[in-house]
Amino acid sequence: MSTAPKSDIIRPTDDQARALARSLVADARYGALAIRDPETGFPHVTRVAVGMQGDGAPLLLVSTLAHHTRALLQDPACALLLGEPGDKGDPLIHPRLSLQARAVEIDKTPLRQAWLASHPKTTLYFDFPDFKMLRLEITLAHLNGGFGKAFHLTGEDFHISPTSTH
Amino acid sequence: MSTAPKSDIIRPTDDQARALARSLVADARYGALAIRDPETGFPHVTRVAVGMQGDGAPLLLVSTLAHHTRALLQDPACALLLGEPGDKGDPLIHPRLSLQARAVEIDKTPLRQAWLASHPKTTLYFDFPDFKMLRLEITLAHLNGGFGKAFHLTGEDFHISPTSTH
Repeated sequence: MSTAPKSDIIRPTDDQARALARSLVADARYGALAIRDPETGFPHVTRVAVGMQGDGAPLLLVSTLAHHTRALLQDPACALLLGEPGDKGDPLIHPRLSLQARAVEIDKTPLRQAWLASHPKTTLYFDFPDFKMLRLEITLAHLNGGFGKAFHLTGEDFHISPTSTH
Repeated sequence: MSTAPKSDIIRPTDDQARALARSLVADARYGALAIRDPETGFPHVTRVAVGMQGDGAPLLLVSTLAHHTRALLQDPACALLLGEPGDKGDPLIHPRLSLQARAVEIDKTPLRQAWLASHPKTTLYFDFPDFKMLRLEITLAHLNGGFGKAFHLTGEDFHISPTSTH
């Protein structure tokens, strides 16, 4: 367990922080996925394609030929870093979101049209039988909105209700 | 343990793969660091500043106020994703490197000049007492050089000898 006074640097979560966190999920096209490597016990981190389901849950399109996918299907505990800085500015000031979640395999067929609209390059392999869609059930998140702007969020903070205009 | 036939998609490691993997470390200015979260048992992934020591080992500059640093100082097993796609091309074709490593705290003072030359924006906080430098002792690595170009490497593949011209 950690012993440092984390309350000193974490701000109270407000609607502005929730909106920024949700926008980082909505805008994500890829991210860094961390899993527990069953062969070494170490964490393992890799780049994956990321989307969002209508209720705000992150989606991953992954191949079962990949080490991280096989690991996740056996052990769903994972983490995802979103908020890519691109080529502009300081990457360590750019807002980013660290999620912890459980990955659940879902049927990709009903999501095909929406996914390919936002990820046209994945059309080449979306229908390959080894490609699966995983939905992430968020358990907690750390939002870093820039130097000194840190927030803790819950899974509920990401939920978009059917009547929302998001 | 995984059961899929991974040998089908992993190519034999050659000098070209080693050179690409080393260049991804040498060129990195930041990356995605994954640790084991002592509070949840889940992986946790965050963005950190990354450099390279003269012998080829990755270096991290991290604050002990951060959750991931406190976790790493107690449990050195970690993973690092390098190879940022920037704004150009398909992020899932861009070469990237997934390292697994043990983090060891080292004295940042002798590395100050070299670090600040490659990371000028960190001059603002490099000397803060809560900022520590961690050296990563690589245990293994997965290199993804683009679709279908996957390689496994060892820590030894990254070692740059004092007589090397790298």
